[in-house]
Amino acid sequence: MGELVGKAVEGELYYAEQEEFERVRRLNAEPQVRTRIFADMARLNALYMIARAGSGHIGSCFSSMDIVAWLHLNDMRRNGDDTARDLYFSSKGHDAPGLYAVLIALGRLPREWVHKLRHIEGLPGHPDVGTPNMVTNTGSLGMGISKAKGMAFAHRRRGIDGRIYVMTGDGELQEGQIWESLVSAANHKLDEITVLVDHNKLQSDYLVSQTSDLGDLDAKFAAFGWHVERVDGHDLDQLAAALERCKRAEAPQVIICDTVKGKGVSFMEHTAMESDAAQYTFHSGAPKAEQYTRAAQELIDKINVQMEAAGTQPLELETVMNKPAPAAGETKRLQPAYTEALLAAAERHPNLVALDADLLLDTGLIPFRQRFPERTVECGIAEMDMVSQAGGMALRGMLPVANSFACFLSTRPNEQIYNNATEHTKIVYVGWLAGMLPGGPGHSHQSVRDIAAVGGVPGLTILEPSCPEEVGPLLRWALETNQGSSYFRMTSIPYALPFALLDGYVPEAGKGVRVGGHDGEAAIVAYGMVMLAEACKAADILKDRHGIGLEVINLPWLNRVDGAWLKSALAGKRALFTLDNHYLDGGQGERVLTAALEQGLAGLTCQRFGLTEVPASGANPDVLRKAGLDAESLAEAMAKRLAG
Amino acid sequence: MGELVGKAVEGELYYAEQEEFERVRRLNAEPQVRTRIFADMARLNALYMIARAGSGHIGSCFSSMDIVAWLHLNDMRRNGDDTARDLYFSSKGHDAPGLYAVLIALGRLPREWVHKLRHIEGLPGHPDVGTPNMVTNTGSLGMGISKAKGMAFAHRRRGIDGRIYVMTGDGELQEGQIWESLVSAANHKLDEITVLVDHNKLQSDYLVSQTSDLGDLDAKFAAFGWHVERVDGHDLDQLAAALERCKRAEAPQVIICDTVKGKGVSFMEHTAMESDAAQYTFHSGAPKAEQYTRAAQELIDKINVQMEAAGTQPLELETVMNKPAPAAGETKRLQPAYTEALLAAAERHPNLVALDADLLLDTGLIPFRQRFPERTVECGIAEMDMVSQAGGMALRGMLPVANSFACFLSTRPNEQIYNNATEHTKIVYVGWLAGMLPGGPGHSHQSVRDIAAVGGVPGLTILEPSCPEEVGPLLRWALETNQGSSYFRMTSIPYALPFALLDGYVPEAGKGVRVGGHDGEAAIVAYGMVMLAEACKAADILKDRHGIGLEVINLPWLNRVDGAWLKSALAGKRALFTLDNHYLDGGQGERVLTAALEQGLAGLTCQRFGLTEVPASGANPDVLRKAGLDAESLAEAMAKRLAG
Repeated sequence: MGELVGKAVEGELYYAEQEEFERVRRLNAEPQVRTRIFADMARLNALYMIARAGSGHIGSCFSSMDIVAWLHLNDMRRNGDDTARDLYFSSKGHDAPGLYAVLIALGRLPREWVHKLRHIEGLPGHPDVGTPNMVTNTGSLGMGISKAKGMAFAHRRRGIDGRIYVMTGDGELQEGQIWESLVSAANHKLDEITVLVDHNKLQSDYLVSQTSDLGDLDAKFAAFGWHVERVDGHDLDQLAAALERCKRAEAPQVIICDTVKGKGVSFMEHTAMESDAAQYTFHSGAPKAEQYTRAAQELIDKINVQMEAAGTQPLELETVMNKPAPAAGETKRLQPAYTEALLAAAERHPNLVALDADLLLDTGLIPFRQRFPERTVECGIAEMDMVSQAGGMALRGMLPVANSFACFLSTRPNEQIYNNATEHTKIVYVGWLAGMLPGGPGHSHQSVRDIAAVGGVPGLTILEPSCPEEVGPLLRWALETNQGSSYFRMTSIPYALPFALLDGYVPEAGKGVRVGGHDGEAAIVAYGMVMLAEACKAADILKDRHGIGLEVINLPWLNRVDGAWLKSALAGKRALFTLDNHYLDGGQGERVLTAALEQGLAGLTCQRFGLTEVPASGANPDVLRKAGLDAESLAEAMAKRLAG
Repeated sequence: MGELVGKAVEGELYYAEQEEFERVRRLNAEPQVRTRIFADMARLNALYMIARAGSGHIGSCFSSMDIVAWLHLNDMRRNGDDTARDLYFSSKGHDAPGLYAVLIALGRLPREWVHKLRHIEGLPGHPDVGTPNMVTNTGSLGMGISKAKGMAFAHRRRGIDGRIYVMTGDGELQEGQIWESLVSAANHKLDEITVLVDHNKLQSDYLVSQTSDLGDLDAKFAAFGWHVERVDGHDLDQLAAALERCKRAEAPQVIICDTVKGKGVSFMEHTAMESDAAQYTFHSGAPKAEQYTRAAQELIDKINVQMEAAGTQPLELETVMNKPAPAAGETKRLQPAYTEALLAAAERHPNLVALDADLLLDTGLIPFRQRFPERTVECGIAEMDMVSQAGGMALRGMLPVANSFACFLSTRPNEQIYNNATEHTKIVYVGWLAGMLPGGPGHSHQSVRDIAAVGGVPGLTILEPSCPEEVGPLLRWALETNQGSSYFRMTSIPYALPFALLDGYVPEAGKGVRVGGHDGEAAIVAYGMVMLAEACKAADILKDRHGIGLEVINLPWLNRVDGAWLKSALAGKRALFTLDNHYLDGGQGERVLTAALEQGLAGLTCQRFGLTEVPASGANPDVLRKAGLDAESLAEAMAKRLAG
């Protein structure tokens, strides 16, 4: 789940070219020997890709790698004509760099994409069918088996012969959809489906057993009518034998693969964690330069030992000098402000409880859990359960604050949020990773439709702080002034903010505040760190280049617009722009324009900016520019609109 | 799940007053004897309530009644001060009339509410915390155990001692949230939670085993770490013993109660179904008058036999003469038109597949399944799984049409719909029971935020046919003209339509069509059978009473507004009204007003009509009037706005 914002590794990086993989595949050796070398080389390349991108999931790429390599090298059939074809995809999707490394090595993805992980013209952070040989879009957990069932149905209807391999995580098994999907697969005897559980015992940051223990997995799958195998996921003989038995089974099958998170690099293996270390540090993000070098060296040494044993020359490596990223200016982050505000609120409210869905680190809750362990409820990757639990708590006198990523929190428990709202209790939902940035993880994690998704929930106020200083006041409003529930949209990345709130500013429901820009004929209403920063920069460009004055207004209330305030804020303006870090449909812009018309604001030139298409996955500036929502694009679009 | 629109039974109806229940409770007899008589009397009253309301779920009220009565009469502790209190609620919620009957009998609900099921000043169709002694809002399946866990957490924090009993259905166990919720209950040893499965073997209309077989339920719960009991749910000795064992268990417990759907009335018991009868007919809706009388007589006879055996006088009955409902004018329904259009489309598209989530009857799919059994996929109550299966099918060449109730389809698989959209495949979603009517079932089933909930999904067009004649053309557009996916909002009730589409009308994306009203200064944009009918009637009132001309425009495109069309449609108008069968926030009105401002339509008097609060549960005209959305209220509000 976690999506730490990492930093690209600077200095010498190493990878192997496709020809080297070809050489290993042609070795006169047992398939197990070839596959082991191939897998370690793919680990080296996946490590390179993640180090270069500055973000990715090393731990699960490595734990699943032996299985992925074995399937692709020795098991899966592949006919060009689509009549007989085995499919493989990962339901968790975090392990995409590992799969990309394998597919590049096999010549099934452009070789230059080894340099383009999380790059706008390369490979997205999580799988997307726009990439060749990607079977389905994943990254949203728990959907894989259901999708495989739909594919199996289509294949049977169309007379296509093919097995479908689905990799899942173990933390992912906490999602209810997994269990929902097992039932009809068994009833319909979909024996062409084989699920591989990458049972590496860790989820985002902690042990599965600490987060939400899975209990007796074998018994669970067996009780759901599945054929169950259990193997050491790094023992290719065991794996191969289990795969063969699966082909003869008359029920859908699951192979529970006991694996080691970070397998292949000693200090990245979870089994190497100090016994008192609570947290595994290679789940997401990127290694430090020193860690990268040690890990790469260890992999290279290991590959060469195996190559020598197989009677072949050592690995020929490619070396890339990765340039340091340009120094970012001073940036700000919302997370520390949230942690501080929540701790203070918990002191004031003895009934405040924080709920988490396996994202303690990403949602800033670790200090909260340290201070209030008895008021921290870790739900695992089970957002529906978390939100309904919050509902039950609120009915019985608690003040629940439910945390997750916005992309999941607004959608997976969407009906549960509404059910809670109909009970007229007070709950605060806090959705991180909101908006289109970071652009690296891709659309499964870019939350750009949550305003719409929780729209229409009666009594629910949607808020987004513009800067760290606004977090505390808004949270206080939600907990102490507001009678109903609130949904916070939180930016996770650090961002340089060319604006500041005035001293003494107190947020008032539905009312915005000017934060920057230049006096003049036009105003833009926006929200959140990223869009307000871009709007301020756009205002400067408009002033400098076109002599146009654009006032930048922060409206942190995403579904509340005070009509009288809007009317006064727009007095004397001839143009109104809005800027959504969200799809236009269902965003704040619609609500602002609606209020403007209802206020009788006539003769305004209007334009809404926001997303109209699924955002790209890539570096942040590239993703903004592609959407036309960076300062430069915005300024030019506004100038054009004002001129036209 | 099913929510058939029924008809109140006319003629003599019978019920027992509270004093009669008191008399039974004071009988000098074994608790089992008293409870059996009490339960049958509560069945009689529940039958009365459903017959009078014209809608309700007899089958599951009756199957769960012995358990509900036993718990309330013999098991649950109840202290006024809230420090020690056992809680009971039904997660499925369909069995609310049975629970209401028990609580009225115990004096815990106003006695006159026996006459007010699904009445705006009485009892909602599904439980709501606004009703005394209702613990939580249910009717949306699968949330109950999660909510109980939240309550248990709150109780432990607050030092409250109390067991929490949660009734679930068996079809409900197909929902993934159930299994998601079991995990932490076991890990945290929440032994104060006892789940009772009303295992009556039928879901909406068919056997669970035909719909989506549950397999070995005992093994499933045991594998999830729960203490499992299995009893005959109509054998009070077995039940009592199991409940006592549960109190000593150190894990959360489930009692799988084998029950008979419709238990207590011979011909309503599912075990009495003819062996070749596919469909159980007493799941939802209301009995016919003749069936009511036979059932009531059978219950009364049975009660009296038991009373005589217990040495007491026969039951004293109250009799009510239920008046015939006023004859409705000619009404129309969308469902036959949909069935016909879908069948025709399936002939044209060999890759069209219909998916269902246990609502074949309610969604009009039974003829489809008869004609195309191999292209009908019954998913059970598993909407996430259904939508992701549809996604998998679409990726592999099929054209899936996924059907459910709008309240569930737009929310439970919300993230799954988005995930599918990011794959740019074509899927048609069809959500029935859309809008605030029927008002009987209550807010869990009134889908009045689905436009918002699926808003912002890129490429997804939201449509609502205004009348049966518009269904075919819109479905054809969705399947054959549209490149992307579509979401249909479908009215389930019959409604009298004082308007008709012009001959030769062909829907064009984003463009509306005038369907009624009077030439004049104002226009109202609306959609769907109910709101367009009310708008047309309002236009007549405005003309007659105030001399105001209001044109009524049908805009079946709920998230597409063609700006140029809107501009021409509003030429010469001084007022624009919009009318949403939905919350104002996120509804069509916002999109229309936004488009109007963007078109530079200045100087318009504007007002949006729609819901701002959770709609009431009750008779349709009452629910409309309460929301201010009936013709009379609308006309007066518009007249006032135009005068102001």
